[in-house]
Amino acid sequence: MWLQREIRLDPHPRGFHLVTGEVVGALPELRDVRAGLMHLFIRHTSASLTLNENASPDVRRDFESWFNDAVAEDAPYWTHTDEGPDDMPAHIKASLLGPSLSLPVSDGRLALGTWQGIYLCEHRDRGGSRSVLATLHGE
Amino acid sequence: MWLQREIRLDPHPRGFHLVTGEVVGALPELRDVRAGLMHLFIRHTSASLTLNENASPDVRRDFESWFNDAVAEDAPYWTHTDEGPDDMPAHIKASLLGPSLSLPVSDGRLALGTWQGIYLCEHRDRGGSRSVLATLHGE
Amino acid sequence: MWLQREIRLDPHPRGFHLVTGEVVGALPELRDVRAGLMHLFIRHTSASLTLNENASPDVRRDFESWFNDAVAEDAPYWTHTDEGPDDMPAHIKASLLGPSLSLPVSDGRLALGTWQGIYLCEHRDRGGSRSVLATLHGE
Repeated sequence: MWLQREIRLDPHPRGFHLVTGEVVGALPELRDVRAGLMHLFIRHTSASLTLNENASPDVRRDFESWFNDAVAEDAPYWTHTDEGPDDMPAHIKASLLGPSLSLPVSDGRLALGTWQGIYLCEHRDRGGSRSVLATLHGE
Repeated sequence: MWLQREIRLDPHPRGFHLVTGEVVGALPELRDVRAGLMHLFIRHTSASLTLNENASPDVRRDFESWFNDAVAEDAPYWTHTDEGPDDMPAHIKASLLGPSLSLPVSDGRLALGTWQGIYLCEHRDRGGSRSVLATLHGE
Repeated sequence: MWLQREIRLDPHPRGFHLVTGEVVGALPELRDVRAGLMHLFIRHTSASLTLNENASPDVRRDFESWFNDAVAEDAPYWTHTDEGPDDMPAHIKASLLGPSLSLPVSDGRLALGTWQGIYLCEHRDRGGSRSVLATLHGE
Protein backbone atom coordinates (compact mmCIF):
# COMPACT_ATOMS: atom_id res chain seq x y z
CA MET A 1 0.00 0.00 0.00
CA TRP A 2 1.38 3.38 -1.12
CA LEU A 3 -0.28 6.70 -0.40
CA GLN A 4 1.10 10.15 -1.17
CA ARG A 5 -0.52 13.36 0.00
CA GLU A 6 0.56 16.95 0.22
CA ILE A 7 -0.01 18.61 3.60
CA ARG A 8 -0.05 22.42 3.59
CA LEU A 9 1.12 23.74 6.94
CA ASP A 10 -0.17 27.16 7.94
CA PRO A 11 2.42 29.95 8.15
CA HIS A 12 4.31 29.84 11.43
CA PRO A 13 6.58 32.50 12.93
CA ARG A 14 10.30 31.82 12.97
CA GLY A 15 11.02 29.13 15.53
CA PHE A 16 10.19 25.53 16.40
CA HIS A 17 6.58 24.36 16.37
CA LEU A 18 4.84 21.13 17.37
CA VAL A 19 2.76 19.87 14.41
CA THR A 20 2.16 16.20 15.29
CA GLY A 21 -1.61 16.65 15.50
CA GLU A 22 -1.84 18.51 12.23
CA VAL A 23 0.18 15.86 10.38
CA VAL A 24 -1.55 12.81 11.86
CA GLY A 25 -4.96 14.42 11.33
CA ALA A 26 -4.22 14.77 7.62
CA LEU A 27 -3.53 11.03 7.29
CA PRO A 28 -6.50 9.01 8.59
CA GLU A 29 -5.26 6.07 6.48
CA LEU A 30 -2.60 5.48 9.15
CA ARG A 31 -5.29 3.40 10.89
CA ASP A 32 -5.14 0.78 8.13
CA VAL A 33 -1.41 0.09 8.39
CA ARG A 34 -0.31 -2.83 10.54
CA ALA A 35 3.42 -2.34 9.90
CA GLY A 36 4.99 0.34 7.75
CA LEU A 37 6.76 3.67 7.50
CA MET A 38 5.55 7.23 7.12
CA HIS A 39 7.91 9.52 5.24
CA LEU A 40 7.49 13.28 5.64
CA PHE A 41 9.34 15.56 3.25
CA ILE A 42 9.39 19.36 3.41
CA ARG A 43 9.80 20.85 -0.05
CA HIS A 44 11.83 23.90 1.00
CA THR A 45 15.44 24.80 1.74
CA SER A 46 14.94 27.21 4.65
CA ALA A 47 12.60 25.18 6.86
CA SER A 48 13.05 21.65 8.20
CA LEU A 49 11.52 18.82 10.19
CA THR A 50 12.77 17.19 13.37
CA LEU A 51 11.51 15.05 16.23
CA ASN A 52 11.89 16.18 19.82
CA GLU A 53 10.28 16.73 23.20
CA ASN A 54 6.54 17.26 22.90
CA ALA A 55 5.65 18.72 26.30
CA SER A 56 7.55 21.89 27.27
CA PRO A 57 7.36 25.03 25.14
CA ASP A 58 10.65 26.11 26.71
CA VAL A 59 12.44 23.25 24.91
CA ARG A 60 11.31 24.67 21.58
CA ARG A 61 12.33 28.19 22.61
CA ASP A 62 15.78 26.90 23.63
CA PHE A 63 16.12 25.21 20.22
CA GLU A 64 15.66 28.62 18.60
CA SER A 65 18.25 30.18 20.93
CA TRP A 66 20.87 27.53 20.29
CA PHE A 67 20.47 27.58 16.52
CA ASN A 68 20.64 31.38 16.42
CA ASP A 69 23.83 31.27 18.46
CA ALA A 70 25.43 28.46 16.44
CA VAL A 71 24.55 29.91 13.03
CA ALA A 72 24.99 33.64 13.52
CA GLU A 73 23.34 36.06 11.10
CA ASP A 74 26.30 38.43 11.30
CA ALA A 75 29.05 35.92 10.59
CA PRO A 76 31.74 37.69 8.53
CA TYR A 77 32.01 34.99 5.88
CA TRP A 78 28.49 35.00 4.39
CA THR A 79 28.50 35.91 0.70
CA HIS A 80 24.90 34.91 -0.09
CA THR A 81 23.20 37.92 1.50
CA ASP A 82 20.82 39.21 -1.18
CA GLU A 83 17.72 37.78 0.46
CA GLY A 84 18.36 39.21 3.93
CA PRO A 85 20.42 38.23 6.99
CA ASP A 86 18.08 35.38 7.95
CA ASP A 87 18.39 33.61 4.59
CA MET A 88 21.81 31.96 4.56
CA PRO A 89 21.59 30.88 8.23
CA ALA A 90 18.19 29.37 7.38
CA HIS A 91 19.80 27.22 4.68
CA ILE A 92 22.46 25.91 7.09
CA LYS A 93 19.93 25.19 9.85
CA ALA A 94 17.69 23.39 7.34
CA SER A 95 20.51 21.01 6.38
CA LEU A 96 21.61 20.44 9.98
CA LEU A 97 18.12 19.24 10.87
CA GLY A 98 17.20 17.80 7.49
CA PRO A 99 14.22 17.94 5.14
CA SER A 100 12.61 14.63 6.05
CA LEU A 101 11.51 12.26 8.78
CA SER A 102 10.90 8.53 8.41
CA LEU A 103 8.64 7.31 11.20
CA PRO A 104 7.60 3.73 11.92
CA VAL A 105 3.90 2.87 11.86
CA SER A 106 2.64 -0.04 13.98
CA ASP A 107 -0.91 -1.28 14.47
CA GLY A 108 -2.47 1.78 12.89
CA ARG A 109 -0.47 4.42 14.76
CA LEU A 110 2.83 6.26 14.58
CA ALA A 111 5.13 4.28 16.86
CA LEU A 112 6.68 7.32 18.53
CA GLY A 113 8.18 7.31 22.01
CA THR A 114 6.13 8.89 24.80
CA TRP A 115 7.95 12.21 24.59
CA GLN A 116 8.45 12.46 20.83
CA GLY A 117 6.63 15.02 18.73
CA ILE A 118 7.06 16.33 15.18
CA TYR A 119 8.54 19.84 14.95
CA LEU A 120 8.18 22.19 12.03
CA CYS A 121 11.39 24.24 12.16
CA GLU A 122 10.76 27.60 10.52
CA HIS A 123 14.10 29.30 9.93
CA ARG A 124 12.94 32.39 8.01
CA ASP A 125 11.48 35.54 9.54
CA ARG A 126 8.56 35.28 7.12
CA GLY A 127 8.56 31.80 5.63
CA GLY A 128 4.87 31.64 4.76
CA SER A 129 2.96 28.41 4.29
CA ARG A 130 5.08 25.26 3.96
CA SER A 131 4.39 22.18 1.85
CA VAL A 132 5.05 18.72 3.28
CA LEU A 133 4.72 15.67 1.05
CA ALA A 134 3.72 12.60 3.07
CA THR A 135 4.40 9.11 1.70
CA LEU A 136 2.73 6.33 3.67
CA HIS A 137 3.77 2.81 2.86
CA GLY A 138 3.07 -0.48 4.62
CA GLU A 139 0.87 -3.52 4.90
CA MET B 1 8.16 -8.52 3.43
CA TRP B 2 7.76 -6.31 6.49
CA LEU B 3 9.21 -7.09 9.90
CA GLN B 4 9.15 -4.86 12.97
CA ARG B 5 11.02 -5.65 16.16
CA GLU B 6 11.97 -3.69 19.24
CA ILE B 7 15.65 -3.89 20.22
CA ARG B 8 16.43 -2.98 23.83
CA LEU B 9 19.94 -1.57 24.06
CA ASP B 10 21.69 -1.98 27.39
CA PRO B 11 22.39 1.22 29.35
CA HIS B 12 25.51 2.97 28.07
CA PRO B 13 27.46 5.80 29.68
CA ARG B 14 27.22 9.25 28.12
CA GLY B 15 29.10 9.21 24.83
CA PHE B 16 29.23 7.49 21.47
CA HIS B 17 29.08 3.69 21.26
CA LEU B 18 29.43 1.18 18.44
CA VAL B 19 26.35 -1.09 18.40
CA THR B 20 26.46 -2.61 14.90
CA GLY B 21 26.90 -6.14 16.21
CA GLU B 22 24.11 -5.84 18.74
CA VAL B 23 21.68 -4.53 16.13
CA VAL B 24 22.53 -6.99 13.36
CA GLY B 25 22.48 -9.87 15.85
CA ALA B 26 18.90 -9.01 16.78
CA LEU B 27 17.76 -9.27 13.14
CA PRO B 28 18.73 -12.68 11.72
CA GLU B 29 15.98 -12.19 9.08
CA LEU B 30 18.37 -9.81 7.28
CA ARG B 31 19.73 -12.95 5.63
CA ASP B 32 16.48 -13.44 3.70
CA VAL B 33 16.43 -9.99 2.07
CA ARG B 34 17.88 -9.71 -1.41
CA ALA B 35 17.21 -5.96 -1.76
CA GLY B 36 15.62 -3.72 0.83
CA LEU B 37 16.01 -1.19 3.60
CA MET B 38 16.44 -1.44 7.34
CA HIS B 39 15.02 1.46 9.31
CA LEU B 40 16.21 1.99 12.87
CA PHE B 41 14.31 4.39 15.08
CA ILE B 42 15.25 5.40 18.63
CA ARG B 43 12.18 6.22 20.68
CA HIS B 44 13.78 8.93 22.81
CA THR B 45 14.55 12.63 22.61
CA SER B 46 17.92 12.72 24.36
CA ALA B 47 19.72 9.90 22.57
CA SER B 48 20.27 9.44 18.85
CA LEU B 49 21.69 7.20 16.14
CA THR B 50 24.38 7.94 13.60
CA LEU B 51 26.78 6.14 11.29
CA ASN B 52 30.50 6.74 11.48
CA GLU B 53 33.99 5.25 11.67
CA ASN B 54 33.95 1.77 13.17
CA ALA B 55 37.61 1.22 14.03
CA SER B 56 39.16 3.83 16.34
CA PRO B 57 37.75 4.47 19.81
CA ASP B 58 39.39 7.92 19.66
CA VAL B 59 36.95 8.94 16.91
CA ARG B 60 34.04 8.27 19.26
CA ARG B 61 35.76 10.13 22.09
CA ASP B 62 36.35 13.12 19.79
CA PHE B 63 32.66 13.08 18.86
CA GLU B 64 31.80 13.52 22.54
CA SER B 65 34.33 16.39 22.86
CA TRP B 66 33.03 18.26 19.84
CA PHE B 67 29.37 17.95 20.81
CA ASN B 68 30.08 19.08 24.36
CA ASP B 69 31.92 22.10 23.03
CA ALA B 70 29.29 22.98 20.40
CA VAL B 71 26.30 22.55 22.73
CA ALA B 72 27.55 23.91 26.03
CA GLU B 73 25.78 22.97 29.26
CA ASP B 74 26.38 26.43 30.70
CA ALA B 75 25.04 28.48 27.77
CA PRO B 76 23.31 31.55 29.24
CA TYR B 77 20.12 31.16 27.19
CA TRP B 78 18.81 27.80 28.41
CA THR B 79 15.40 28.10 30.05
CA HIS B 80 14.54 24.37 30.18
CA THR B 81 16.80 23.47 33.11
CA ASP B 82 14.55 21.54 35.51
CA GLU B 83 15.96 18.15 34.56
CA GLY B 84 19.62 19.05 35.01
CA PRO B 85 22.32 20.76 32.94
CA ASP B 86 22.75 17.77 30.60
CA ASP B 87 19.07 17.67 29.58
CA MET B 88 18.58 20.57 27.17
CA PRO B 89 21.96 20.02 25.42
CA ALA B 90 20.91 16.36 25.02
CA HIS B 91 17.76 17.42 23.16
CA ILE B 92 19.74 19.63 20.75
CA LYS B 93 22.36 16.95 20.11
CA ALA B 94 19.62 14.37 19.50
CA SER B 95 18.08 16.52 16.77
CA LEU B 96 21.44 17.38 15.18
CA LEU B 97 22.18 13.67 14.73
CA GLY B 98 18.62 12.48 14.32
CA PRO B 99 16.46 9.67 15.71
CA SER B 100 16.70 7.27 12.79
CA LEU B 101 18.92 5.56 10.24
CA SER B 102 17.79 4.03 6.95
CA LEU B 103 20.33 1.49 5.77
CA PRO B 104 20.32 -0.43 2.48
CA VAL B 105 20.22 -4.21 2.61
CA SER B 106 21.72 -6.20 -0.29
CA ASP B 107 22.07 -9.98 -0.67
CA GLY B 108 21.24 -10.68 2.96
CA ARG B 109 23.56 -8.11 4.53
CA LEU B 110 23.64 -4.45 5.50
CA ALA B 111 25.35 -2.75 2.55
CA LEU B 112 27.58 -0.54 4.69
CA GLY B 113 30.90 0.87 3.57
CA THR B 114 34.04 -0.78 4.96
CA TRP B 115 34.46 1.83 7.68
CA GLN B 116 30.83 2.45 8.60
CA GLY B 117 29.38 1.35 11.92
CA ILE B 118 26.19 2.17 13.81
CA TYR B 119 26.65 4.48 16.80
CA LEU B 120 24.31 4.78 19.75
CA CYS B 121 24.74 8.39 20.85
CA GLU B 122 23.89 8.66 24.54
CA HIS B 123 23.55 12.33 25.43
CA ARG B 124 22.37 12.02 29.05
CA ASP B 125 24.58 11.38 32.07
CA ARG B 126 22.26 8.53 33.08
CA GLY B 127 20.08 7.66 30.10
CA GLY B 128 19.33 4.07 31.05
CA SER B 129 18.27 1.42 28.58
CA ARG B 130 17.19 2.69 25.15
CA SER B 131 14.53 1.29 22.87
CA VAL B 132 15.16 1.05 19.12
CA LEU B 133 12.34 -0.01 16.81
CA ALA B 134 13.70 -1.79 13.73
CA THR B 135 11.59 -1.98 10.56
CA LEU B 136 13.00 -4.33 7.93
CA HIS B 137 11.43 -4.21 4.52
CA GLY B 138 12.46 -5.75 1.22
CA GLU B 139 12.16 -8.63 -1.15
CA MET C 1 9.42 -2.81 -7.39
CA TRP C 2 12.88 -2.71 -5.86
CA LEU C 3 15.98 -1.56 -7.69
CA GLN C 4 19.45 -1.11 -6.24
CA ARG C 5 22.33 0.44 -8.13
CA GLU C 6 25.73 1.79 -7.19
CA ILE C 7 26.49 5.28 -8.51
CA ARG C 8 30.18 6.22 -8.62
CA LEU C 9 30.58 9.96 -8.21
CA ASP C 10 33.68 11.49 -9.75
CA PRO C 11 36.25 12.95 -7.31
CA HIS C 12 35.25 16.43 -6.17
CA PRO C 13 37.35 18.99 -4.32
CA ARG C 14 36.56 19.65 -0.68
CA GLY C 15 33.27 21.54 -0.48
CA PHE C 16 29.62 21.27 -1.43
CA HIS C 17 28.62 20.18 -4.93
CA LEU C 18 25.32 19.93 -6.78
CA VAL C 19 24.92 16.39 -8.15
CA THR C 20 21.16 16.16 -8.86
CA GLY C 21 21.69 15.68 -12.59
CA GLU C 22 24.32 13.01 -12.15
CA VAL C 23 22.14 11.03 -9.73
CA VAL C 24 18.88 11.30 -11.69
CA GLY C 25 20.70 10.47 -14.93
CA ALA C 26 21.93 7.21 -13.42
CA LEU C 27 18.37 6.11 -12.61
CA PRO C 28 16.22 6.20 -15.75
CA GLU C 29 13.84 3.73 -14.02
CA LEU C 30 12.50 6.66 -11.99
CA ARG C 31 10.16 7.20 -14.96
CA ASP C 32 8.32 3.98 -14.19
CA VAL C 33 7.45 4.84 -10.58
CA ARG C 34 4.04 6.34 -9.90
CA ALA C 35 4.53 6.66 -6.13
CA GLY C 36 7.59 5.66 -4.19
CA LEU C 37 10.82 6.62 -2.47
CA MET C 38 14.40 6.91 -3.63
CA HIS C 39 17.00 6.21 -0.95
CA LEU C 40 20.54 7.45 -1.52
CA PHE C 41 23.28 6.16 0.75
CA ILE C 42 26.91 7.26 0.71
CA ARG C 43 29.22 4.47 1.81
CA HIS C 44 31.82 6.67 3.52
CA THR C 45 32.36 8.35 6.86
CA SER C 46 33.98 11.60 5.72
CA ALA C 47 31.56 12.67 3.00
CA SER C 48 27.81 13.16 3.22
CA LEU C 49 24.62 14.00 1.33
CA THR C 50 22.20 16.84 1.91
CA LEU C 51 19.47 18.74 0.10
CA ASN C 52 19.66 22.50 -0.31
CA GLU C 53 19.39 25.48 -2.63
CA ASN C 54 20.12 24.55 -6.23
CA ALA C 55 20.70 27.95 -7.83
CA SER C 56 23.47 30.05 -6.26
CA PRO C 57 27.04 28.78 -6.04
CA ASP C 58 27.57 31.24 -3.17
CA VAL C 59 25.19 29.20 -0.99
CA ARG C 60 27.45 26.18 -1.42
CA ARG C 61 30.54 28.27 -0.70
CA ASP C 62 28.91 29.61 2.48
CA PHE C 63 28.14 26.06 3.56
CA GLU C 64 31.85 25.28 3.40
CA SER C 65 32.67 28.43 5.40
CA TRP C 66 30.17 27.71 8.16
CA PHE C 67 31.18 24.07 8.56
CA ASN C 68 34.88 24.97 8.68
CA ASP C 69 34.14 27.55 11.36
CA ALA C 70 31.87 25.27 13.41
CA VAL C 71 34.16 22.23 13.26
CA ALA C 72 37.63 23.72 13.51
CA GLU C 73 40.64 21.73 12.37
CA ASP C 74 42.76 23.15 15.16
CA ALA C 75 40.40 22.42 18.07
CA PRO C 76 42.54 21.49 21.09
CA TYR C 77 40.57 18.35 21.97
CA TRP C 78 41.11 16.20 18.87
CA THR C 79 42.90 12.95 19.65
CA HIS C 80 42.27 11.17 16.32
CA THR C 81 44.84 13.10 14.27
CA ASP C 82 46.86 10.38 12.49
CA GLU C 83 45.16 10.91 9.15
CA GLY C 84 45.65 14.67 8.98
CA PRO C 85 43.88 17.75 10.35
CA ASP C 86 40.96 17.45 7.93
CA ASP C 87 40.07 13.89 8.98
CA MET C 88 38.36 14.18 12.36
CA PRO C 89 36.40 17.33 11.38
CA ALA C 90 35.27 15.41 8.27
CA HIS C 91 33.80 12.66 10.46
CA ILE C 92 31.85 15.17 12.56
CA LYS C 93 30.55 17.06 9.52
CA ALA C 94 29.51 13.76 7.92
CA SER C 95 27.36 12.85 10.90
CA LEU C 96 25.84 16.34 11.21
CA LEU C 97 24.61 16.13 7.63
CA GLY C 98 24.08 12.39 7.49
CA PRO C 99 24.93 9.57 5.08
CA SER C 100 21.55 9.26 3.37
CA LEU C 101 18.62 11.01 1.74
CA SER C 102 15.12 9.60 1.29
CA LEU C 103 13.35 11.43 -1.50
CA PRO C 104 9.73 11.00 -2.60
CA VAL C 105 9.06 9.95 -6.18
CA SER C 106 5.75 10.94 -7.82
CA ASP C 107 4.56 10.33 -11.37
CA GLY C 108 7.98 9.30 -12.62
CA ARG C 109 10.00 12.14 -11.11
CA LEU C 110 11.72 13.13 -7.89
CA ALA C 111 9.13 15.28 -6.08
CA LEU C 112 11.60 17.95 -4.99
CA GLY C 113 10.66 21.55 -4.26
CA THR C 114 11.57 24.14 -6.89
CA TRP C 115 14.76 25.17 -5.13
CA GLN C 116 15.93 21.79 -3.83
CA GLY C 117 18.99 20.06 -5.21
CA ILE C 118 21.13 17.13 -4.05
CA TYR C 119 24.52 18.10 -2.62
CA LEU C 120 27.55 15.87 -2.40
CA CYS C 121 29.37 17.18 0.68
CA GLU C 122 33.06 16.35 0.35
CA HIS C 123 34.72 16.94 3.71
CA ARG C 124 38.23 15.65 2.95
CA ASP C 125 40.97 17.59 1.14
CA ARG C 126 41.42 14.60 -1.19
CA GLY C 127 38.41 12.34 -0.81
CA GLY C 128 38.61 10.69 -4.22
CA SER C 129 35.68 9.03 -5.95
CA ARG C 130 32.65 8.38 -3.74
CA SER C 131 30.22 5.46 -3.90
CA VAL C 132 26.48 6.09 -3.49
CA LEU C 133 24.11 3.12 -3.28
CA ALA C 134 20.67 4.04 -4.63
CA THR C 135 17.62 2.01 -3.61
CA LEU C 136 14.49 2.82 -5.61
CA HIS C 137 11.24 1.38 -4.37
CA GLY C 138 7.66 2.07 -5.38
CA GLU C 139 4.74 1.10 -7.54
